Amino acid sequence: MSSTFGTIFKITTFGESHCKSVGVVVDGCPSGIELSEEDIQPQLTRRRPGQSALSTPRDEKDSVIILSGVENGLTLGTPIAMIVNNRDQKPGDYSEMADIPRPSHADFTYQTKYGIRASSGGGRSSARETIGRVAAGALAQKILDKYGIEIVAYVDSVGDVKSGSVDLKSITRENVETNAVRCPDIKAADKMITYIEELKELKDSVGGVVTCVCRNVPAGLGEPVFDKLEASLAQAMLSIPATKGFEIGSGFEGTKMRGSIHNDPFLMTDGKLRTSSNNSGGIQGGISNGEDIFFRVAFKPPATIGMEQKTVTFKGENVTLSAKGRHDPCVVPRAVPIVESMASLVIADMILRQKRFL
Amino acid sequence: MSSTFGTIFKITTFGESHCKSVGVVVDGCPSGIELSEEDIQPQLTRRRPGQSALSTPRDEKDSVIILSGVENGLTLGTPIAMIVNNRDQKPGDYSEMADIPRPSHADFTYQTKYGIRASSGGGRSSARETIGRVAAGALAQKILDKYGIEIVAYVDSVGDVKSGSVDLKSITRENVETNAVRCPDIKAADKMITYIEELKELKDSVGGVVTCVCRNVPAGLGEPVFDKLEASLAQAMLSIPATKGFEIGSGFEGTKMRGSIHNDPFLMTDGKLRTSSNNSGGIQGGISNGEDIFFRVAFKPPATIGMEQKTVTFKGENVTLSAKGRHDPCVVPRAVPIVESMASLVIADMILRQKRFL
Amino acid sequence: MSSTFGTIFKITTFGESHCKSVGVVVDGCPSGIELSEEDIQPQLTRRRPGQSALSTPRDEKDSVIILSGVENGLTLGTPIAMIVNNRDQKPGDYSEMADIPRPSHADFTYQTKYGIRASSGGGRSSARETIGRVAAGALAQKILDKYGIEIVAYVDSVGDVKSGSVDLKSITRENVETNAVRCPDIKAADKMITYIEELKELKDSVGGVVTCVCRNVPAGLGEPVFDKLEASLAQAMLSIPATKGFEIGSGFEGTKMRGSIHNDPFLMTDGKLRTSSNNSGGIQGGISNGEDIFFRVAFKPPATIGMEQKTVTFKGENVTLSAKGRHDPCVVPRAVPIVESMASLVIADMILRQKRFL
Amino acid sequence: MSSTFGTIFKITTFGESHCKSVGVVVDGCPSGIELSEEDIQPQLTRRRPGQSALSTPRDEKDSVIILSGVENGLTLGTPIAMIVNNRDQKPGDYSEMADIPRPSHADFTYQTKYGIRASSGGGRSSARETIGRVAAGALAQKILDKYGIEIVAYVDSVGDVKSGSVDLKSITRENVETNAVRCPDIKAADKMITYIEELKELKDSVGGVVTCVCRNVPAGLGEPVFDKLEASLAQAMLSIPATKGFEIGSGFEGTKMRGSIHNDPFLMTDGKLRTSSNNSGGIQGGISNGEDIFFRVAFKPPATIGMEQKTVTFKGENVTLSAKGRHDPCVVPRAVPIVESMASLVIADMILRQKRFL
Repeated sequence: MSSTFGTIFKITTFGESHCKSVGVVVDGCPSGIELSEEDIQPQLTRRRPGQSALSTPRDEKDSVIILSGVENGLTLGTPIAMIVNNRDQKPGDYSEMADIPRPSHADFTYQTKYGIRASSGGGRSSARETIGRVAAGALAQKILDKYGIEIVAYVDSVGDVKSGSVDLKSITRENVETNAVRCPDIKAADKMITYIEELKELKDSVGGVVTCVCRNVPAGLGEPVFDKLEASLAQAMLSIPATKGFEIGSGFEGTKMRGSIHNDPFLMTDGKLRTSSNNSGGIQGGISNGEDIFFRVAFKPPATIGMEQKTVTFKGENVTLSAKGRHDPCVVPRAVPIVESMASLVIADMILRQKRFL
Repeated sequence: MSSTFGTIFKITTFGESHCKSVGVVVDGCPSGIELSEEDIQPQLTRRRPGQSALSTPRDEKDSVIILSGVENGLTLGTPIAMIVNNRDQKPGDYSEMADIPRPSHADFTYQTKYGIRASSGGGRSSARETIGRVAAGALAQKILDKYGIEIVAYVDSVGDVKSGSVDLKSITRENVETNAVRCPDIKAADKMITYIEELKELKDSVGGVVTCVCRNVPAGLGEPVFDKLEASLAQAMLSIPATKGFEIGSGFEGTKMRGSIHNDPFLMTDGKLRTSSNNSGGIQGGISNGEDIFFRVAFKPPATIGMEQKTVTFKGENVTLSAKGRHDPCVVPRAVPIVESMASLVIADMILRQKRFL
Repeated sequence: MSSTFGTIFKITTFGESHCKSVGVVVDGCPSGIELSEEDIQPQLTRRRPGQSALSTPRDEKDSVIILSGVENGLTLGTPIAMIVNNRDQKPGDYSEMADIPRPSHADFTYQTKYGIRASSGGGRSSARETIGRVAAGALAQKILDKYGIEIVAYVDSVGDVKSGSVDLKSITRENVETNAVRCPDIKAADKMITYIEELKELKDSVGGVVTCVCRNVPAGLGEPVFDKLEASLAQAMLSIPATKGFEIGSGFEGTKMRGSIHNDPFLMTDGKLRTSSNNSGGIQGGISNGEDIFFRVAFKPPATIGMEQKTVTFKGENVTLSAKGRHDPCVVPRAVPIVESMASLVIADMILRQKRFL
Repeated sequence: MSSTFGTIFKITTFGESHCKSVGVVVDGCPSGIELSEEDIQPQLTRRRPGQSALSTPRDEKDSVIILSGVENGLTLGTPIAMIVNNRDQKPGDYSEMADIPRPSHADFTYQTKYGIRASSGGGRSSARETIGRVAAGALAQKILDKYGIEIVAYVDSVGDVKSGSVDLKSITRENVETNAVRCPDIKAADKMITYIEELKELKDSVGGVVTCVCRNVPAGLGEPVFDKLEASLAQAMLSIPATKGFEIGSGFEGTKMRGSIHNDPFLMTDGKLRTSSNNSGGIQGGISNGEDIFFRVAFKPPATIGMEQKTVTFKGENVTLSAKGRHDPCVVPRAVPIVESMASLVIADMILRQKRFL
């Protein structure tokens, strides 16, 4: 297990689906920051299931409790532990899965690696693990606020349904929240919703892509060569459950371009060196250049589906598996605050690691 | 700077284009492994420029010297330092760039972050930095050999020219070496070579994609949640100069699939639980499942081009820049051993971190 | 802040005197270990104040709750979070100290470093911080049990009162628990108790020395050069509040010996290479040699005393300070389980880091 | 192996007695620091053997070469690799030891842990390993210079011969260099020299204590709870070969004092809160308080002696061993720059880790 992330702003997460609590310890948070549960709760609420007809109807309140590190509403510079209590600690619906590793889920690999697994299946591969990340990300955002850094993610595509053009310079979390699928292009959003509802009927699932933009990030962040800013973002994003890809700036499409077109020429604007295009996605040589950082994250379709699947038991016997209960046909809308959180964590840590001169 | 990578098998790289030596220290390598310079040199030779008409004709010999950690041809369990001496320590061709930050290069960001930069420009953003990685990767491969793990990368596309289907189960490094562009599909390779030669004439550049497969990786590797195997691979790949994207298994295309299609059903083969498809790319829940691991890495077109570009000086004066000397129009073929090396480092470290039971 | 300790068996502690909970997250604990609160509680109970007339009478129950990482009484290989709730979250007795930094306490340095401090004073410099360490140490001991490793600490001296000779080969925790001061030499223990009671009357305090022995530690543990076993033990011990010194084997006295006397000659016993003396304290070159590891830890007298002290306020005004409430005149007996815990953590981590051959 | 030390100012050392080179890579050094080999060489020269009749006459020049990270005399912010070439790469005198583990040396433990060892014996347990530390320490001192921080160590005792009182507030490295044994009390120094010469005749060895003071260290350094300043110093010192103990401030003697005497009262001097005594040794609660930091390090007598010792071979056969060649009867004088170097490394790293407020 490796449950710690960050170098100076360092988080350690814990918790499975059916233990007493899930949570996080944030070590290295500066002192003197105003902090209460109200600062943390909104992103947790965006993350939790049951927010709309689109997602699983389990109504988890997910109320955060700050255990340490804050007194009189101010951070002390000491570790900040935050937990969310699990309400359902006695797993019931999973008995069937005791003998059958769900295809493309982590049942088999956890069993292989640890020789044991949580009754709910993948244990820490559960989406519930991300609660600690989101709580810590909301705290990291408090640091970013001091720099005016804004991080906004949205659903760029669901299956084949792609969002139209979105203005990364102006999009806000409010824009994103205008619909259940968190796609700011309302027309595309409608199609996505219809598509997800169809899949729900079919007891099938589908993937999608989340795009994220980070604005007002100061130039100079990132620690080459192994903690280049894009490398840390890539690690952060691929550590989110169900992710299969990451691309920044021009990404895979950029591989087809010529250098003369792809290069971002410099120009002087308001006394600052800026670039007139941004194929770099705000990072050059692993270090932020002051332009908007934007990247895309690929999420596969959820593995747990109600539809019948042919597979085998741990012992190799042929079986037909159809997951009981209700499962998210598409996790991408709920992934939006998780992507934002991981981006916040990376950038907050890079700010605190940054020591340009003595 | 963050020049150390790995948890148990830990590498620290150093060196710029024009200092005395570039190299690496590998700490945590097990003792008793047969090792000599001959084990390291071949991958370094694949990496160096000047191997064909396609790449820059600077003839750098890049001979590796092992400084420590080996006696009588066996590793001692102590740190293994390896260096390659730079032959050209007095940079000449770069004077012009003292005042002009190259578009999409690291000149501007290094200057901003460190208040100084190497005369050759981006310093550690130079491709020469990867020598230490490749030397360490060749050493890591010696560990993988004990498990029969094979890692093979190849050029999947150059610009718009895409390789035809390649059998990931059987492809070898020998197949890849049959042509200068390192694409095992000879027809596509010919087109790629023609295209690169055209761009060379035009003093322009182009990007491409490298695909990599890791075979015989035992199930159980990867350390959730932040060092999931795909997260560590993503960090490793995005830390390579000029990379813009990473996708594993079904990747971005997989986001369009339904779960019922995307899921990899289990079957029992030769007493082992295997999967009949491999959209997961050999990893589930962040842990290897014993199937082939495969992923793709996007490389942007090189930023330094001979063609004229309009940009501004550090002071903001309009200038036209055309890089002197000869520069690689396409780095993707040379990136092949670098991708393999980083994959080797990640997997060797995960093997050594693995402690399933007491 | 640096609240994480260990490389593979990694603990992260949190909590101040007056927050909701103090606790620890243990990451990297192997799966399949039998674990319940009953395994953890005894050492916490030994640690807590109010156990005898000698220590502060605040009756803190300190009941541990396991939040995650355990199901059906077995560890899952996932992070194990454990907390102890604080009962007194509204500090009252400390108002006086708001303006006066206690001499030799951490009030001044925390205020200087963080620009804020917990109302109880030093925040994380409070002895209450050690609860997380002791809970984690009790878990580490479960790993050591599998190797038959025994760790026993005891009070070697209180002020000038020194224990007589103690047989490190046979002493048990039961021996140590025979009296309130945790010194197995009953006569010395009586003198220590009398002395501490005198000081209590005087509202003064005194320091002491804890000796610790680790038996049955396998040869080969320790990671030279910076994580030599004695270096990690030294860091661990000097991170305990109020410690001022560490010595291992012959220690400071050994500096006066000649090499011909100090050297531990080898002999062959039961087919094993052993040493006939043990001035090395079980470690040579930073690696355990299979002999008993023993070391001593110096604790200063507690800084908070009821006696009047002349000092100044934060503003520099002369004041006389006498701490209200009851304070431990001697923390050394309560330090015994803390020293054992830190030793357990170091050795468990070294076992899990150990990879002799592939 | 764990050959990396530090969090932001991070060093990685490498090299054995008889490999090509020993050295260090320093990652995280700020840019823009004036640096050349002349800044590094003096401490290396103080460290090397053969400086006086007291130490081993092997004349090792130990000339440092900077391989990377510096251009035009200024650090670039990139990793700085420094090496010293070994002149004697073909070990000869050690053949005898192939079969006999030297008592109290690391031959046995390295063989046990790694299944192999360098022909010179303990490999990385050799004093030659400290070259990298001293080179890095000299670089760290360049950072400390910007804060006016002075670090001076000296020999406090050799065997039973103890230095008289030394004024820690004023002592300089020049004072220390006035005699071969590096004890600023000339009378004691004469006795130490006589004693060491006697032991040399007897082919025996002796230990000693080094005291070190760090002046002008700003208040606020140290990262509780596990990287408290004294904990990091303890780890650093106990990682030096042949060390057996560490004490800071009042140390072991302080355990005998009462709190009312031991406490350091505050007073206001020149507008700053200072303490009128310094039993704390400049650290309270793990954080520097602005007073002088001073500590003592115990060194055992060297294990390799010319005198006859009875021991057994690896196979258990009784033998008499007398080491050939000339060996240091007392390493304490040469340890002085090593202690200073490790202290410099700890403090430089703590300065760079320090982020009081945003």
